[in-house]
Amino acid sequence: MRRASFADMNCSIAQALEVIGPWWTPLIIRDALMGVTRFDHFQSRLGIARNVLTQRLDHLVTHGVLEAVPYQDRPPRYDYRLTDKGRDLWTVLTALRQWGDTWLADEGPPVEAVHRTCEHTARALPVCSACGRPLHGHDLSLRHGPGAPDGGVLPE
Amino acid sequence: MRRASFADMNCSIAQALEVIGPWWTPLIIRDALMGVTRFDHFQSRLGIARNVLTQRLDHLVTHGVLEAVPYQDRPPRYDYRLTDKGRDLWTVLTALRQWGDTWLADEGPPVEAVHRTCEHTARALPVCSACGRPLHGHDLSLRHGPGAPDGGVLPE
Repeated sequence: MRRASFADMNCSIAQALEVIGPWWTPLIIRDALMGVTRFDHFQSRLGIARNVLTQRLDHLVTHGVLEAVPYQDRPPRYDYRLTDKGRDLWTVLTALRQWGDTWLADEGPPVEAVHRTCEHTARALPVCSACGRPLHGHDLSLRHGPGAPDGGVLPE
Repeated sequence: MRRASFADMNCSIAQALEVIGPWWTPLIIRDALMGVTRFDHFQSRLGIARNVLTQRLDHLVTHGVLEAVPYQDRPPRYDYRLTDKGRDLWTVLTALRQWGDTWLADEGPPVEAVHRTCEHTARALPVCSACGRPLHGHDLSLRHGPGAPDGGVLPE
């Protein structure tokens, strides 16, 4: 069996990938987070085929990650702006960037983030929402939550 | 122009997607983080075609995310174990999971994480590595880092 979709998996990672997984999509969101809004600007930065870009933007509008705001009537043209749902993807893109910086960027990070509040170069570090201490992957144990009343994706 | 690869982009997000972007790959890493190591176990959990799974596992071994540890000689069989580089992807998978929980999981999170240290249900919250305060996407300003001596991916 080969799946074309993860939509039937009761797993938030699979559901998230349905929205942002398709090839090109994370880079479109990256550019949107950097302030790109216009079709031609995405197109020239990414070197993506126009029909593929149209499809990906429509997909992100359908899923409420971007909204298409008209800025011209004839012909109709749109700014593609991140919604709150879309802006909240900064956590995913930041985690991807930091992992790439750590493990793949031999010459050092191509892009750094500065925390406006303290004015220092900053990485996002995960802390526990309950106790505030630094979180490490091996400190987390997974269990089924309220969204998996009849069993879910955790292995036996 | 249509790209088949992001490898020539000087961007850690694009480089990370080269490794973990291909369809299925994030779910293979999800399962590996949940303790799955055997080919047949990945295959039955994901319902993925065996040739595709072989290709994806080989790709992750080549990129040092998984290591193949023989557990049987004839025929040769391997456990696929996460390396340090692979385990470090928990940050990316956790960010995806939490975004999916927030925006896509109408019935609540299918999976929850418990922080072993404090024994509470925990979300990973990003704090600034420099000042320790909570980080928000709009507090970050991006600039080119040492890995982009001749200009990089930030828009003008």
